[in-house]
Amino acid sequence: MSEADDDAPVATLDEIRALLAELPGPDLEAGAAAAARQAGLTKPPGALGRLEALAEWLATWQGRAAPRLERPHVAVFAGNHGVAAQGVSAYPAEVTAQMLRNFIDGGAAVNQLSALADAELSVYEMALEQPTHDFTETPAMDDEDCARAMAYGMMAVQEGFDLYALGEMGIANTTSTAAICHALYGGEPQDWTGRGTGVDDATLARKTAVVGEAVARHRAAMTDPFQVLRCLGGLEIAAIAGAILATRLARTPVMLDGYACTAAAAVIHAADPQALDHCQVAHLSAEPGHRRLLERLDKRPLLDLEMRLGEASGAVLAIQLLKAACACLNGMATFEEAGVSGRLA
Amino acid sequence: MSEADDDAPVATLDEIRALLAELPGPDLEAGAAAAARQAGLTKPPGALGRLEALAEWLATWQGRAAPRLERPHVAVFAGNHGVAAQGVSAYPAEVTAQMLRNFIDGGAAVNQLSALADAELSVYEMALEQPTHDFTETPAMDDEDCARAMAYGMMAVQEGFDLYALGEMGIANTTSTAAICHALYGGEPQDWTGRGTGVDDATLARKTAVVGEAVARHRAAMTDPFQVLRCLGGLEIAAIAGAILATRLARTPVMLDGYACTAAAAVIHAADPQALDHCQVAHLSAEPGHRRLLERLDKRPLLDLEMRLGEASGAVLAIQLLKAACACLNGMATFEEAGVSGRLA
Repeated sequence: MSEADDDAPVATLDEIRALLAELPGPDLEAGAAAAARQAGLTKPPGALGRLEALAEWLATWQGRAAPRLERPHVAVFAGNHGVAAQGVSAYPAEVTAQMLRNFIDGGAAVNQLSALADAELSVYEMALEQPTHDFTETPAMDDEDCARAMAYGMMAVQEGFDLYALGEMGIANTTSTAAICHALYGGEPQDWTGRGTGVDDATLARKTAVVGEAVARHRAAMTDPFQVLRCLGGLEIAAIAGAILATRLARTPVMLDGYACTAAAAVIHAADPQALDHCQVAHLSAEPGHRRLLERLDKRPLLDLEMRLGEASGAVLAIQLLKAACACLNGMATFEEAGVSGRLA
Repeated sequence: MSEADDDAPVATLDEIRALLAELPGPDLEAGAAAAARQAGLTKPPGALGRLEALAEWLATWQGRAAPRLERPHVAVFAGNHGVAAQGVSAYPAEVTAQMLRNFIDGGAAVNQLSALADAELSVYEMALEQPTHDFTETPAMDDEDCARAMAYGMMAVQEGFDLYALGEMGIANTTSTAAICHALYGGEPQDWTGRGTGVDDATLARKTAVVGEAVARHRAAMTDPFQVLRCLGGLEIAAIAGAILATRLARTPVMLDGYACTAAAAVIHAADPQALDHCQVAHLSAEPGHRRLLERLDKRPLLDLEMRLGEASGAVLAIQLLKAACACLNGMATFEEAGVSGRLA
């Protein structure tokens, strides 16, 4: 675990925006080689369903015909939100720091799931004692704080991993998530606002009102997706957005988690619709806005298990599907090797 | 791998029917203990979605408050079908034996997936040189053959495993599957008949006609679900039905695979609607009849990845979800242990 501090590289939002012009595309040659191998394996064409497409997608972003998932890295970013003061969560704000301690002590869901997936887990604390501003009053961040948080997320991306699974922890961050989605895509505040950790009807009504008022208040300032992130986001959400850019620059594939994580991705998508091509969405969250958000991103989740925990739990679970896809592509015999008859004419 | 032979225990369909009166129920005490532990874990209640219900379901059928998935057993039964002579498959009938060889040599999808799940794989050959009769002419099996195949499937179930994942291989067995479903549930033949390994339009039309004619031909003989199995089933399908009974008698939980495997389960369900309570369905097959069948069984699949391979591939993939469910239930800290604040009043 690390702490964002003054040693973080200085970047501006303009410098980060400029990276969008430099994003590499997929390695189509590697993908074609994987597809060619897939076509000869001992199964009817297409019979492994989405596992086949996943293997080929991994090949294009890892730049190898035989993709692998031996070193996945799970990165969980944690931040505190000024808007928690509005009473929008079922839990008090100190739970963010307490859960961070739980991650470090190995007691959270993501610890168990990462161990099962043989994945390295890193937890990044985003200055928990300095929450974002309450965005019902002022923008959540100034330009510098937002850029610094994004740069911090970029720094977290290291060489040598086969995949990044991204996730978050932050009491009140589904309020931030809903506000980002409402700002980016319009509709009504209730389209994007759900029960999060499980708020009651009265809190849900307050949360929905907070989302609507915040978006209205900052409308003029939100001149581009990065300004939406600055006005309504959180430090952990900005860090995930940064990590998505850095993984893309490194051509490392990404597994996104649930609603808050996908909202961070939506900021990048709104700036460049191709910028999420190296990302899969692990699961459909039980938080109702997630389905609507995935439609906007044209992303189809891999799992639908009614999970709504965050902390990368769904993303880590989906690593197993990618491992399965790799194992089948790389390990299965071809019809020729196995002496199995092909299709009838 | 073993071969069904004359050493198989002699059983009659009447003796097997009589087992239905002896099926044990779940261990509700173990389930309640698991649920009580779950309620204290460091996550909002319900936030792990279906993983929570899966862990509690495993507890009830393993009879322990802390369920485990350290020794899963994958059992794949392979049989040949006389109805293959009607040209209902995209592949020649000899592919069943060739794929069996591929399973033994480790080259099939189920080999890779079992290795990944750290599961023991057993493949059971059901006298491939003696296919069932072509059920467009006569019943697929006589009483004795059907009972013997079921008894063989029962024998395959051993002590000491945490879960059985069941699957099948048999060229033309989606024709048998569709006929069983049409016989059990009515509707039109096309409601239950799909492209299987990928047949073209002309073959699909022939396959659908075969299903309709076979069900009409044997209507009078199909006086109960076991007679449906005898008239329209296959040896591997009967063996799976037997394995489902034996696992239930042993209170060992089961993960069912796709369409053909679920049709074997449907025979048991039609005889006793509670008899599948120890079974989960791993995935929704791309074979369209599977969704309709699952509605009849009131079973919700865990995965929907457009797979349609059989050979237990989906069931083995879903083992990972059960492992995740166990890992979270057993390994997570409670709010008290971790010193995390509970919900606000």
